[in-house]
Amino acid sequence: MIEISASDQYLTASADSLLLDIYDALPAGLYPPFPPLELPGGLGGLVSRGGFAQTFFFGAEVLGLTFIAPSGRRVVAGGRTVKNVQGYDLTRPFVGSFGALGVTETVTLRLRPGLASAHHSRPGRLEDAEESRARFLWQDGETLHAYHFGHVREVEAVMQAFGGTPDLARPDHRTAFVGGMGVGEGGPLRDRRFGWQAGGTVPDMPDLFARVAASL
Amino acid sequence: MIEISASDQYLTASADSLLLDIYDALPAGLYPPFPPLELPGGLGGLVSRGGFAQTFFFGAEVLGLTFIAPSGRRVVAGGRTVKNVQGYDLTRPFVGSFGALGVTETVTLRLRPGLASAHHSRPGRLEDAEESRARFLWQDGETLHAYHFGHVREVEAVMQAFGGTPDLARPDHRTAFVGGMGVGEGGPLRDRRFGWQAGGTVPDMPDLFARVAASL
Repeated sequence: MIEISASDQYLTASADSLLLDIYDALPAGLYPPFPPLELPGGLGGLVSRGGFAQTFFFGAEVLGLTFIAPSGRRVVAGGRTVKNVQGYDLTRPFVGSFGALGVTETVTLRLRPGLASAHHSRPGRLEDAEESRARFLWQDGETLHAYHFGHVREVEAVMQAFGGTPDLARPDHRTAFVGGMGVGEGGPLRDRRFGWQAGGTVPDMPDLFARVAASL
Repeated sequence: MIEISASDQYLTASADSLLLDIYDALPAGLYPPFPPLELPGGLGGLVSRGGFAQTFFFGAEVLGLTFIAPSGRRVVAGGRTVKNVQGYDLTRPFVGSFGALGVTETVTLRLRPGLASAHHSRPGRLEDAEESRARFLWQDGETLHAYHFGHVREVEAVMQAFGGTPDLARPDHRTAFVGGMGVGEGGPLRDRRFGWQAGGTVPDMPDLFARVAASL
């Protein structure tokens, strides 16, 4: 299930939606908070891991979600519009909690407008691109990727500063993560937050966060 | 206590810091996620209520905080840099929880760069300014206020579109909120999220959020 409201600039999709299926469903001029590629777990996996490759605060782009808490309780968090972000926030702790708070059912994402988009790649490492203003930056092996959308001239300027050449591939990285997409160095992908490796290892959970998880 | 790191663009301050004292302590070219005015409860009150007047996601600007949970436990949430925003997020549920998760001790806020800033006011209501790109918009009685910082030309363009005239006042709204700054219509101030009225009324808390509060 992928429902898009172009006028209110959001989409609601089931957690098992593929990232590239969401791209294919978008109307012209609206973009989601992830780059055009496929990762393990589809949309639900992406949200559980706290996003991929973004250089902005991913949690702000998740307007709401429904999930099944460890108790079996179904939790409806947040809403469908930016105006619903009014406090008592159970959406943001869920985002990036690596499944500790439960299993995602549906996700509502903010869509942002852009008149143009571009994806460039070049040899390099993330450490070479700290000044880049691209909305998404990631490293695949020894190749650095930048994806950006926005005003035409802004996209041109970001890509010119990044260098490289246009990259039309929409890679499917699912098979590179046997046993899940976990955190750790030496894996196939890196972004500014983590190295991403096969095997599903997740960051250590603070005790207090475990208490929150048990309360839901 | 107000500590500022200009190089890493953050400030850490005690919850009782006054908003205008923070403005006075800022180095040139860095701005906090609130406009130059005074509100009840200082910085801790602001964070507990989820900010004031912002047109962006306020939670993203709170990098970390320490608070005393209802159990008496001292909680350290988040960190001091954007890179610490890596999941298991206890910062964002605290922001805008109107005290339900505890009492703030210290707050670390992201500071953002700007070469210029401007504050305009004019007769009007928030409903007249839905298209404004100002970072902060609020209504005081029948007067509409916009505050923006950023590139020089961007600030000029935002203020030209808003209209009105430069407003150099840095008002102290504390005395207008006898009994606390609560939510409701008919009070002295409004922003896009809430009407703000005297008396400390807070939005109804979902049961599940109360369970989270009890777990901390």
